[in-house]
Amino acid sequence: MTARNFLTQGKKIVAIGRNFSEHAKELGNAVPKSPFFFLKPTSSYLPNGGTVEIPTGCKVHHEVELAVVIGKDGRDYQPSEAMDYVAGYALAIDMTARNLQTEAKTKGLPWSASKGFDTFTPISEFIPKEKITDPSNVDLWLKVNDTFRQNGNTRDMIFEIPMLLSYVSSIMKLETGDVILTGTPSGVGPIHAGDVIKAGLKVGSPDDLLTVQYNVGDRNGLFKA
Amino acid sequence: MTARNFLTQGKKIVAIGRNFSEHAKELGNAVPKSPFFFLKPTSSYLPNGGTVEIPTGCKVHHEVELAVVIGKDGRDYQPSEAMDYVAGYALAIDMTARNLQTEAKTKGLPWSASKGFDTFTPISEFIPKEKITDPSNVDLWLKVNDTFRQNGNTRDMIFEIPMLLSYVSSIMKLETGDVILTGTPSGVGPIHAGDVIKAGLKVGSPDDLLTVQYNVGDRNGLFKA
Ligand SMILES: [Mg+2]
Ligand SMILES: [Mg+2]
Ligand SMILES: [Mg+2]
Repeated sequence: MTARNFLTQGKKIVAIGRNFSEHAKELGNAVPKSPFFFLKPTSSYLPNGGTVEIPTGCKVHHEVELAVVIGKDGRDYQPSEAMDYVAGYALAIDMTARNLQTEAKTKGLPWSASKGFDTFTPISEFIPKEKITDPSNVDLWLKVNDTFRQNGNTRDMIFEIPMLLSYVSSIMKLETGDVILTGTPSGVGPIHAGDVIKAGLKVGSPDDLLTVQYNVGDRNGLFKA
Repeated sequence: MTARNFLTQGKKIVAIGRNFSEHAKELGNAVPKSPFFFLKPTSSYLPNGGTVEIPTGCKVHHEVELAVVIGKDGRDYQPSEAMDYVAGYALAIDMTARNLQTEAKTKGLPWSASKGFDTFTPISEFIPKEKITDPSNVDLWLKVNDTFRQNGNTRDMIFEIPMLLSYVSSIMKLETGDVILTGTPSGVGPIHAGDVIKAGLKVGSPDDLLTVQYNVGDRNGLFKA
């Protein structure tokens, strides 16, 4: 497989929590002293243009994030080596059933269901590494129904990408096509059936390097919160 | 891909928590009223004969479990349909850094790191479905250094396999080669470098249908708990 095919062939999504202090605070959480992460299933990927499905009884929040796509297998690497393992990037939205996540946090239970529903990881096409020469200066924005909800810059990350990759690789090997979601800036909030979500990223130029657009609908499945 | 190749080509591991009441109680937890699960990365698979690595500062516990291997893509299926999606089984050990998990539970943080280290999912070869005609009557045992630690039967599961598969499929689609770990009976406990772990399963006959064996060593990596 190649990193470019991450969406259909990648095996894991490692999502960093609370990596922007304004976002940690908006949910009433402490700013972390070391990184932490959770896993999302790759079955939750949703390509550009798709429809995010709201499971019955779920209060779903958007979290726009810069995704890092791994290009080479490795583990236990130092921050100074980490960028050698990066093939490129993507723009992702870490959809979260906030009511389920809050309940899980209260009970000390895993976050996996709240983060793992089908369609809960809308993601863009692959962005080759050379298109983002400074991943610590990327503007990320998200609009719902043409109103800005999130507008941040990766310079405000608490833990920078090389440190995050090194940390994760000290626990689990990272393989070609694996994706790391690097955390969301503040402004997260609810989406509802009928909404239209747009998101994009900019690197230096006032023009977007890339944008994505998603519809929102209800999932009429077996799950009831 | 085929289900038989789950170990190298499968995409996700969904692990059910506290599915045996004696095990829930031994860790001081309430017996759950509905199933819950967490994700393990497939990078944590360890084939039979391998060495489980103990990360620095981690208190690692064994949890022997029956693994279900999915043979067909699907979602939102009823318990009555669920067994049609099963290709076979495997014997797995859900290794857990118990001290990290306990800390995560206290803080309301994800379990992913505590469950996701490399080598933390020792697993047997694929067992075709027809070799286990009644998955609700399987003896599971685990020994450390030839002393029995776990000795249970899947008849004591709180939630049976068809219900578990239906529940997970109502949240995330299950794909060929995905694996569901169905929970551990009581008797979990620590392992240390130098230990030898043996585990097996029986179906009716006093002979084991299958056994596995693992060594235990220290991981000399970057991670320090
Ligand atoms: Mg910075
Ligand atoms: Mg997030
Ligand atoms: Mg377990």
